[in-house]
Amino acid sequence: MKLSQSFTKTMKTAPADEASVSAKYLLRAGYIYKEMAGVYDYLPLGMRTLNKIIQIIREEMNAIGGEELSLTALQTKEVWDATDRWSDDVMDIWFKTKLNAGGELGLAPTHEEPLTRVMKSYISSYKDLPVYAYQFQTKFRNELRAKSGIMRTREFVMKDLYSFSKDRAEHDKFYEECAQAYIKIFNRLGIGNDTYRTFASGGAFSKYSDEFQTLCEVGEDIIYLDREKGIAVNEEVYNDEVLADLNLDKKKLEKCKAAEVGNIFTLGYRFSDALDLCFNDEDGKRQKVFMGSYGIGPSRVMGVIAEKLSDDKGLVWPEEIAPFKYYLVGIGEEAEKKAAELYEKAPEDIIFDDRESARTGEKFADADLMGIPYRVVISDKTLAENKVEIKDRKTGETKLLTLDEFTSKLA
Amino acid sequence: MKLSQSFTKTMKTAPADEASVSAKYLLRAGYIYKEMAGVYDYLPLGMRTLNKIIQIIREEMNAIGGEELSLTALQTKEVWDATDRWSDDVMDIWFKTKLNAGGELGLAPTHEEPLTRVMKSYISSYKDLPVYAYQFQTKFRNELRAKSGIMRTREFVMKDLYSFSKDRAEHDKFYEECAQAYIKIFNRLGIGNDTYRTFASGGAFSKYSDEFQTLCEVGEDIIYLDREKGIAVNEEVYNDEVLADLNLDKKKLEKCKAAEVGNIFTLGYRFSDALDLCFNDEDGKRQKVFMGSYGIGPSRVMGVIAEKLSDDKGLVWPEEIAPFKYYLVGIGEEAEKKAAELYEKAPEDIIFDDRESARTGEKFADADLMGIPYRVVISDKTLAENKVEIKDRKTGETKLLTLDEFTSKLA
Repeated sequence: MKLSQSFTKTMKTAPADEASVSAKYLLRAGYIYKEMAGVYDYLPLGMRTLNKIIQIIREEMNAIGGEELSLTALQTKEVWDATDRWSDDVMDIWFKTKLNAGGELGLAPTHEEPLTRVMKSYISSYKDLPVYAYQFQTKFRNELRAKSGIMRTREFVMKDLYSFSKDRAEHDKFYEECAQAYIKIFNRLGIGNDTYRTFASGGAFSKYSDEFQTLCEVGEDIIYLDREKGIAVNEEVYNDEVLADLNLDKKKLEKCKAAEVGNIFTLGYRFSDALDLCFNDEDGKRQKVFMGSYGIGPSRVMGVIAEKLSDDKGLVWPEEIAPFKYYLVGIGEEAEKKAAELYEKAPEDIIFDDRESARTGEKFADADLMGIPYRVVISDKTLAENKVEIKDRKTGETKLLTLDEFTSKLA
Repeated sequence: MKLSQSFTKTMKTAPADEASVSAKYLLRAGYIYKEMAGVYDYLPLGMRTLNKIIQIIREEMNAIGGEELSLTALQTKEVWDATDRWSDDVMDIWFKTKLNAGGELGLAPTHEEPLTRVMKSYISSYKDLPVYAYQFQTKFRNELRAKSGIMRTREFVMKDLYSFSKDRAEHDKFYEECAQAYIKIFNRLGIGNDTYRTFASGGAFSKYSDEFQTLCEVGEDIIYLDREKGIAVNEEVYNDEVLADLNLDKKKLEKCKAAEVGNIFTLGYRFSDALDLCFNDEDGKRQKVFMGSYGIGPSRVMGVIAEKLSDDKGLVWPEEIAPFKYYLVGIGEEAEKKAAELYEKAPEDIIFDDRESARTGEKFADADLMGIPYRVVISDKTLAENKVEIKDRKTGETKLLTLDEFTSKLA
């Protein structure tokens, strides 16, 4: 991307009503635009980072047998009445609307009901099971309070996978496979070290659910963490009985603030019962399908990463999800020409700051604010030695590479 | 994709209320699922085709300098009031909803207003222009009547690009570049031969707008086509004065049914005026930004292609947008093993019909219904000659290839 041809610009200040560091930097660096409280547009840089996060999650969901689809936001009352979740008294985050042709519609805050209904067309025999279907889809949630920038919003993209299994044993096996996939995802996203599998409240079909909680000062959750064992307990189920059950020693637990970046629920027969999703087993006996749900919010994850990894100069993206890997600056006439040549070799990897109007200091400040992993500078001086200077955004470490060494990194 | 591991199945019949051929086939082949009239989910095969269409459009929009972003569906009254388009009397396709925290929101049926407002943060000088920003984003339109399957729906993905130019000359240049990009897109999508640039009603800033109309029996538009010149006139502006203006001979025009697959509008100062989007020109004089809009509905295009190219056996996809290129069937024990080997070489290109329960005739019928460009059959007989049989879905032509020849196509 050439900055001279990109419409976004960095800004000196962020809206006064943004409390979180991540939102301030994302707004100032031109990643997002605020439509209203809890509703953000994704500008080109923001789209690129969000899509890289999505692609990592997609790869890991495909690796465990997930099939990608896309359900609609618009929902009829009928299918949600079956599970008693249409009423605003039961689900208080609905956005409801009216069809001009008559009738009330809702904007799906989650998709258990419609997907269970879809499966009624496709699941009839044990041979049709298991099914693991997922989507990256926009959820609408009428939150009373939106907060922490893109970490809790009213419109956001969500990866939700739903599993449909023959029985509990088949379900349990996949549940654990997905938990392992989540660990891989958070490692790839660069927050693996600070993300903990956390016991949280379960439901009728399971004592606990699994949350993935990332240590984060602006997180909304409190967890009790056993660092040695690498597991945690959500405050909502933190009591002596649970600690005994999980064999955790109260004295070893740290109380931490954390942000939920993923969750896994055993739904059991809750939805298949209400919507009558059945299959005939090996003996021809009609059985209910055993279900689970598995969520990760890519935009929330993006917010948490921005929050955790940024420093006093701006954002700091891990390489795998940075919108671009290199931020290229040429200083001096010859060096600028060389920079332009290098840029052409890998425009998908490089932000080329070719702005005539910006001084070098501004360019460096913008490179830092945008959080691009490596700042690459060619000056007439480095060029005389046939070299470029590379600075690591995270460590601040600087080194000189020959042009060939740098070019080989691009190829 | 292995069919044994894919949850969708083909169906013998489609819902009785579907009138269009495309919708019937897309439903029966498991590409889409109907949530309600005018609202369809995309199942894995449908997602793949839709995403391939989107990728072609994206490539051509990037090629003319488009920058991709993503605006939100949720909209505040404020920004639409500025252009007088909030009222249901003015725009009768709004879905409106209420925020729990107070206030009314709408679901964007289009995005001129919010994007113009975004640009107020980024455009202030002639140096910031032009800007070409686009998105693939879900639109919500409260249509009184939804019809023709996925060709006119209430929730659908739309490519909308908006141009922001210094003046009319800069605008006109891009307008034509985009029109040429549209021609490339429809050629790549396999409907170029039957898609015509069509004069339609303009507005305050332009006598005409440009529509791209594809000849199609279930289309909602009537156009008057001059095949020789390759241009058409929409019925809405068809009169003697316009024909004279365009130098068209009434006697040479054919009256045809057509479906609009793309459109281009000169918006002029309509939105920059209302929302006060200005820039300082070279002389430091404050000027209004000159705007245009450029739409293509990928899901509508998918419906039109399905409608036009299908035959009495089912869908017929052009190679570039088929969900998979090959439909592989093994007949006989050894042949099935060989087929499984071939599949592993290119799982992204092949549907492997490895269903134990399906007879060969059913497999062939499903290959036809799904519209996969090439059916590849390995039988113990072809295997004895080290060959596979390839059948072209469109022409019905069959030929034998050696295994090496086929494998080299995959690589």
